[in-house]
Amino acid sequence: MKRDLDRLITERNLDAIIVEGPDGFASANPDFNYLVGGVHLTGTVIKKRGEPAMIVYRTMERQQAEETGLVMVSYDRWNMREIRKRCPDNFTAQVEHRRQMLTDLGIEGRVGIYGTVKAGQYFAVMAALAQQLPNLEIVAEFENDLFSAARLTKDHDEIERMRTVGQKTCEVVQTVVNFIRSGRANGDMLVDSRGQPITIGHVRQLIGREIAARGLETPFGTIFAQGRDAGMPHAAGDDGEPLRLGQAIVFDIFPREAGGGYYHDMTRTFALGYAPPELQQTYDEVRGAFEQVVGELEAGAPTKPYQNLVCQYFEARGHETIGSKSPIEEGYVHGLGHGLGLEIHEDFGFPAGQDRGEIIMPGAVFTVEPGLYYPSKGYGVRIEDTIYCTPDGHFENLTPYPKELVIPITQD
Amino acid sequence: MKRDLDRLITERNLDAIIVEGPDGFASANPDFNYLVGGVHLTGTVIKKRGEPAMIVYRTMERQQAEETGLVMVSYDRWNMREIRKRCPDNFTAQVEHRRQMLTDLGIEGRVGIYGTVKAGQYFAVMAALAQQLPNLEIVAEFENDLFSAARLTKDHDEIERMRTVGQKTCEVVQTVVNFIRSGRANGDMLVDSRGQPITIGHVRQLIGREIAARGLETPFGTIFAQGRDAGMPHAAGDDGEPLRLGQAIVFDIFPREAGGGYYHDMTRTFALGYAPPELQQTYDEVRGAFEQVVGELEAGAPTKPYQNLVCQYFEARGHETIGSKSPIEEGYVHGLGHGLGLEIHEDFGFPAGQDRGEIIMPGAVFTVEPGLYYPSKGYGVRIEDTIYCTPDGHFENLTPYPKELVIPITQD
Repeated sequence: MKRDLDRLITERNLDAIIVEGPDGFASANPDFNYLVGGVHLTGTVIKKRGEPAMIVYRTMERQQAEETGLVMVSYDRWNMREIRKRCPDNFTAQVEHRRQMLTDLGIEGRVGIYGTVKAGQYFAVMAALAQQLPNLEIVAEFENDLFSAARLTKDHDEIERMRTVGQKTCEVVQTVVNFIRSGRANGDMLVDSRGQPITIGHVRQLIGREIAARGLETPFGTIFAQGRDAGMPHAAGDDGEPLRLGQAIVFDIFPREAGGGYYHDMTRTFALGYAPPELQQTYDEVRGAFEQVVGELEAGAPTKPYQNLVCQYFEARGHETIGSKSPIEEGYVHGLGHGLGLEIHEDFGFPAGQDRGEIIMPGAVFTVEPGLYYPSKGYGVRIEDTIYCTPDGHFENLTPYPKELVIPITQD
Repeated sequence: MKRDLDRLITERNLDAIIVEGPDGFASANPDFNYLVGGVHLTGTVIKKRGEPAMIVYRTMERQQAEETGLVMVSYDRWNMREIRKRCPDNFTAQVEHRRQMLTDLGIEGRVGIYGTVKAGQYFAVMAALAQQLPNLEIVAEFENDLFSAARLTKDHDEIERMRTVGQKTCEVVQTVVNFIRSGRANGDMLVDSRGQPITIGHVRQLIGREIAARGLETPFGTIFAQGRDAGMPHAAGDDGEPLRLGQAIVFDIFPREAGGGYYHDMTRTFALGYAPPELQQTYDEVRGAFEQVVGELEAGAPTKPYQNLVCQYFEARGHETIGSKSPIEEGYVHGLGHGLGLEIHEDFGFPAGQDRGEIIMPGAVFTVEPGLYYPSKGYGVRIEDTIYCTPDGHFENLTPYPKELVIPITQD
């Protein structure tokens, strides 16, 4: 949580942190968004250990800077026009501007760097700064960094927002199911009231409208994948394809609050009209694995055993899993779940690979999403809910939506 | 254009380029999107001078990797499970995996780095790699980098897409105007058929739905700012505020194709019912400046004189401008326009500050957006279209929408 930041800064023996918010990445800069409260602006957040965070803002965005509630520092305090006069080129001037900024603000010692940036530009500036400021030690954390650690546990306001996104996401799924039920079967195809085939593209348009109407957005799109595509975990589905009866449809929807806010993540697998016995059995096995994991969740428990449990559960039923062979393309091919919040994949999770010693922290929000994939047989199944581990160690399912494979369809 | 890449790589004396496409930044990674054709996947694009680009992809995303049309290289060609066994931690393993990758693929010499990344993680990995690979010289370009230069000029397919986004954006604006016209005046407020005030929030919801229905998205939101807010170039507008007659409304809309595609950018200033004389005069002056600039555009001409022209035009009419004083908060406070494409602000533009020697290149797409801002007097005006300089040096306006200040409103 945000209130952990100073403790984490101290634990990492940092003197200050710099969080970059360059133009253009507002909706893809979770660490910056986290500190500025989701306000959209260009700027840099600078915080010294034990002191309040500052926002270095541009004059044009003064109002937005005020909304962040951070200490206001104008970018123009260091006059770029004057600096340019003494510098041979724009790069030198930008570095000099930042050198003056860090020097005046007393930013030195071990300084952690965060935020989303353009690789080359950023590397160029920081390398030049490091040369000019011998008292500046740039600390680049690779994983479990300051913000991953802080953002791992959600506070009350964050959970309120995530709960709302979950409810809205379930509403969108319900709208899609209602739309499908409004169709009729014509042979193995689903058709509308005029007898025209209903395609995945039609469904995707509906999803787009329903998402937008609820103040959500889907930066990574939505998976609505039928048949063989359902058997490939990341295939998005083919818009031109008509919906067909008796086929597996994996519907994985992961919207967030519009403009770079909190995500939800849920998956249902559907079959229209009926499910062939093999698909029904596979579905029941995935659901069984899901229920077993959720039933056994314990606050403070390590996450890796849950992944192992699912591998054993599936292997006992004759499926290959990533627990015994990696990489694989059929069977159970991925990890059981991942943390989520301002990013769709946050650091914490149930790893498919190496155990990194992660535990289920009170305050964490994560997905549980077992699946079985058989592209060669033309189907796949995944079931996914978003789960919250409360501060007192209980579990709240943030995805209040039923898990039924078959959507009944009226025969024409 | 993409076909310029090899020439640009040679001009910059690079041996290879690496373009990062890490998980989570699909919709905010224009250089990566540019090379993979907008396909959503995690991975790394690597290209040696004079050779076709490769995509290093994850097994789960094989299908997406195929869609990119690039040379396929599996991430699993270097076995992470084996590497982990010999490394003390995940960071060391990740660096070792990448070291093997670059060595096997023969990536050495001067290597340019691009793409959107997490600052700390990326800095950590590249600094470690640079130490381990003495033949690797990381080239970090600060500005006018390889991709800025390539993306500055658009090819036929890109222009087709940008033209379509422009048309759709104008449709959205028309829908908003129709909605406003469907209201009636009650005193100085706009009300709906039940007599309830129509708010900026209502308009913003409509914009959201209309954007989504056209397969667009607005990662930075939309400006719909009334009165004093219209006088602050970046103020988004207050959703709770009712629409009022006779107030300036700056409506700046900049959507892109959903999932990280091409942008459009346009602004209209409206007044409902009537415009007070001072607002009308200011509007006419901004429109006059706009028309003069657009009338004088010339392919191959330097851009800075157009900014100067607008400053002179406004100063001759008694307004302060950034041409004489910087920073300023009233009058003409910003640059005349910017390049756009896969980013809302691309490198090329009409600078408010230092002349960087930019010229209007055939193939470039850019905005022209003069404005005058008087927050202290409770209004502001901006007019903006997106303009394309064709290969043969003509200019096409990609924003086919009229410029009328007053939206007539029926009296209740």
